[in-house]
Amino acid sequence: MMALQPVLLNGSWCSSRNPEGTFNATNPATGEKLPEIYPVSGAEDMELALTAARQAVAELRALPPEGIAHFLETFAAEIEARRDILVQTAQAETGLPAKPRLAEVEFPRTTNQLRQAAAAARDRSWCRPTIDTAANIRSKYASMGGPVTVFGPNNFPFAFNSVCGGDFAAAVAAGNPVIAKANTGHPGTSRIFADAAVGAMRKSGVPSSLVQMVYRLKPEDGLRLVSHPLIGATAFTGSKAAGLRLKQAADSAGKPIYLEMSSLNPVVVLPGALEERSGTIAGELYGSCTMGSGQFCTNPGLVLLLEGSGSDAFIESCRNHFHDSAAGVLLGAQVLSDATAAVNTLRDHGAELITGGHPVESDGYRYANTLLRVSGHTFLKSPALLQTEAFGPVSLIVSAEGLPQLIEIIEGLEGNLTGCIYSHTKGGEDDRLYDRIAPALRSRVGRLLNDKMPTGVAVSPAMNHGGPYPATGHPGFTAVGIPASMLRFAALHCYDNVRAHRLPEELQDRNCTGDLWRLIDGQWTQKSI
Amino acid sequence: MMALQPVLLNGSWCSSRNPEGTFNATNPATGEKLPEIYPVSGAEDMELALTAARQAVAELRALPPEGIAHFLETFAAEIEARRDILVQTAQAETGLPAKPRLAEVEFPRTTNQLRQAAAAARDRSWCRPTIDTAANIRSKYASMGGPVTVFGPNNFPFAFNSVCGGDFAAAVAAGNPVIAKANTGHPGTSRIFADAAVGAMRKSGVPSSLVQMVYRLKPEDGLRLVSHPLIGATAFTGSKAAGLRLKQAADSAGKPIYLEMSSLNPVVVLPGALEERSGTIAGELYGSCTMGSGQFCTNPGLVLLLEGSGSDAFIESCRNHFHDSAAGVLLGAQVLSDATAAVNTLRDHGAELITGGHPVESDGYRYANTLLRVSGHTFLKSPALLQTEAFGPVSLIVSAEGLPQLIEIIEGLEGNLTGCIYSHTKGGEDDRLYDRIAPALRSRVGRLLNDKMPTGVAVSPAMNHGGPYPATGHPGFTAVGIPASMLRFAALHCYDNVRAHRLPEELQDRNCTGDLWRLIDGQWTQKSI
Repeated sequence: MMALQPVLLNGSWCSSRNPEGTFNATNPATGEKLPEIYPVSGAEDMELALTAARQAVAELRALPPEGIAHFLETFAAEIEARRDILVQTAQAETGLPAKPRLAEVEFPRTTNQLRQAAAAARDRSWCRPTIDTAANIRSKYASMGGPVTVFGPNNFPFAFNSVCGGDFAAAVAAGNPVIAKANTGHPGTSRIFADAAVGAMRKSGVPSSLVQMVYRLKPEDGLRLVSHPLIGATAFTGSKAAGLRLKQAADSAGKPIYLEMSSLNPVVVLPGALEERSGTIAGELYGSCTMGSGQFCTNPGLVLLLEGSGSDAFIESCRNHFHDSAAGVLLGAQVLSDATAAVNTLRDHGAELITGGHPVESDGYRYANTLLRVSGHTFLKSPALLQTEAFGPVSLIVSAEGLPQLIEIIEGLEGNLTGCIYSHTKGGEDDRLYDRIAPALRSRVGRLLNDKMPTGVAVSPAMNHGGPYPATGHPGFTAVGIPASMLRFAALHCYDNVRAHRLPEELQDRNCTGDLWRLIDGQWTQKSI
Repeated sequence: MMALQPVLLNGSWCSSRNPEGTFNATNPATGEKLPEIYPVSGAEDMELALTAARQAVAELRALPPEGIAHFLETFAAEIEARRDILVQTAQAETGLPAKPRLAEVEFPRTTNQLRQAAAAARDRSWCRPTIDTAANIRSKYASMGGPVTVFGPNNFPFAFNSVCGGDFAAAVAAGNPVIAKANTGHPGTSRIFADAAVGAMRKSGVPSSLVQMVYRLKPEDGLRLVSHPLIGATAFTGSKAAGLRLKQAADSAGKPIYLEMSSLNPVVVLPGALEERSGTIAGELYGSCTMGSGQFCTNPGLVLLLEGSGSDAFIESCRNHFHDSAAGVLLGAQVLSDATAAVNTLRDHGAELITGGHPVESDGYRYANTLLRVSGHTFLKSPALLQTEAFGPVSLIVSAEGLPQLIEIIEGLEGNLTGCIYSHTKGGEDDRLYDRIAPALRSRVGRLLNDKMPTGVAVSPAMNHGGPYPATGHPGFTAVGIPASMLRFAALHCYDNVRAHRLPEELQDRNCTGDLWRLIDGQWTQKSI
């Protein structure tokens, strides 16, 4: 039997202390177990991680932002040196295509994110220094004073990996140590990233427990971790069920937790848009819904139409795309069974199958590209259950009888990450409809799009990858987009009458970088006082 | 029997629908019941408030920020027109002195806050427009899409009144309707403010349900309100017990809640400061601890000393101040019994009485100005119970045996709003001690002070009136300081590829006010694109 894979704790790779069990990853394209065996960490690993992180918090106080920036950039380079093995391992563990997805899209996104985070740490403007010179009160955002624990999702083995992805980069750039809980679906990929992190930590001279990683925790240990007195905050991306359990534990301990849980990402296609470019939009919907086998948090799972001349032709055009296409590989057995169950729930409540709606015979895990339809009337009979997320290549088309019904449907939607409206490029009657629909949709989504499917999530300072509950746990924060995403892992620190030489550099009279943006007496400026 | 006082719901004063009971306020200086009778609102009032607020949310979408600003300024003027009756009523209901406290300090603070909020609404920079021109992604903070419910505390009948105070001003300036739950201690004061709000709403043409108010709710109805699907967010200032119950209800419904619950506000006085100005500091401590009968959220309830030559003399000097002083009036019977119980808890766990420690015989509610002391050693035996907050004119002095023990004590402190360090004005040995102590204190408080007692909370953009749990529910937000406090009542709204004419004004290419601060391609600027 193979040896257990080591965990990264207290500055080095070591054996898990008293693990609670073991597990293997599975190749979802073949259904075969992969050979490496990973420990399920227990209380001892967790205590060691927390104690080491506490030490890292103390050491980080003495580290200038340049040290953090240097680590993040070195880490990006260390990752690049492991590109081939990362792509190969992630492909085996997730079934996602090596090219273009893993190697050409997600890989560069991951290293770019780390470099953007490095630039933000160096620039320091993220901490929003605010100075009231008359009252001599000064404040800025600062690190949490405890480690951030990151639970990564199954669907982005690189860009949202708990030990190198978006949450990780934001937490570290804000000056926090990270305790990563790898996703159980891709432990080998995570191990290689963690190894790159070890290399980068040694080369850059940051605290040796800045980054720690375990592969898996029993659910009750996860709850203990996010509510532990030493924890600063938690970031979680994954299922609503798991996220809500963690939220309850963290909330009752008064620990901030940021969740990205579920989203249907409604897309409204107005009649003028259908009249103008029905076929194009059907193609875009198909592409967005089946990309990555539909396993995106911004997958368009709900399409809203006004019943009328163009809607049936649009549905037929969508059907052709979906019907003729081969099913992609899903991330694992659980995703397959969850998608199967979700589609059954939709059908049980009146959704009719247009195409797909069943697992596909294969060695691995595949579900047919699936379209369903339901009338607005039927939708409004079971609005909650017909918003069941089918994570995978599945979309439900709702045809509303008229504008009032369409608005009623939108007003009954849960919080979503995104919402989109397609309309005639020339405006016209669609503009009138837009003005009625957009306000209702606006308050239910984090990102509102026009004429564009939601699956592309640009790493932009203006991005909001967030939204009202239950898409996330708080509508004021974004998980993507530096520097805004860093504010999740920051506490507001105010200095009142504190002597000048004791102030953090960012709050001293002299502008410490020369171009740090500060809000001084109500005006943003890069000048010194 | 007097008629029940009306509630402010759905745009006008009306009778409470099926109230759950009635109550009177009490004059805490005399213990006498005041004549007016107020309803305890039940489910019907709550439903009416929520339905009306939903309508107000819809109407607010069409109201430009100037409308909000105009309302806030008109409201300030309407309040000023009621100054004498407000001071008189608040004095009767709270026992706080008419002058200087109510009329000259808290009153102008309240109207100033409303005017600052008006300026922020008009200026719009609070919403932090962020634009990525290359990707055409634009984002800003916006109102919550549901009303904010505000639970006001007993200790600031003007400046933190639920229907005109800091939370109210921040919520309205961010574009949200408010459902105010008046503090039970000063319903008459709140009724006059609400009446001023009605006047201001009519004069300024804002939605008629922008402001609503009830006087009291049964605890279970409070829980229903903060977790109601139509609610946007909640602000609560008050006791930890009540705050934690509301937090649990709001958290489980995924509704943001901001709490300001309890704080000991530790003050560390270093040996050099004692050597230099022991008597002055003792006077400052006395003033800060007994001001407003000690009923400030930033009351210095814990003083940390290093045992040594100066500490006994300092304690003696403090004792003289406290011992010789008359007890002020407390806000009510509950405050008196809570303070009594808290001091007993402290004494039960080893704190020795220096002076005070008992209710004072009088018609109303008074508790002797009280000092206790405990050794660092004893403190560390029961650190949790010796952090019991005694809301009132009570402070516990802890004498640590040496620096390591002092740091251990600080590292065991719960989250606080403020922390302060007094040191020798020339630095010297105190500076060395400061460097060891300040990092530990920094991560446990929202506002760090030097050489200054914490009870003054300036309404400054750089203020943080917040701090780590359980001082508040989240360390990243402040309840005082416009515009930062407004971000508590805002959702992040992103626009991705949205057509130019459909963008909110703040995100269009042209700078809509001419001097709106926006973060465009990483640079803060007031220019148009």
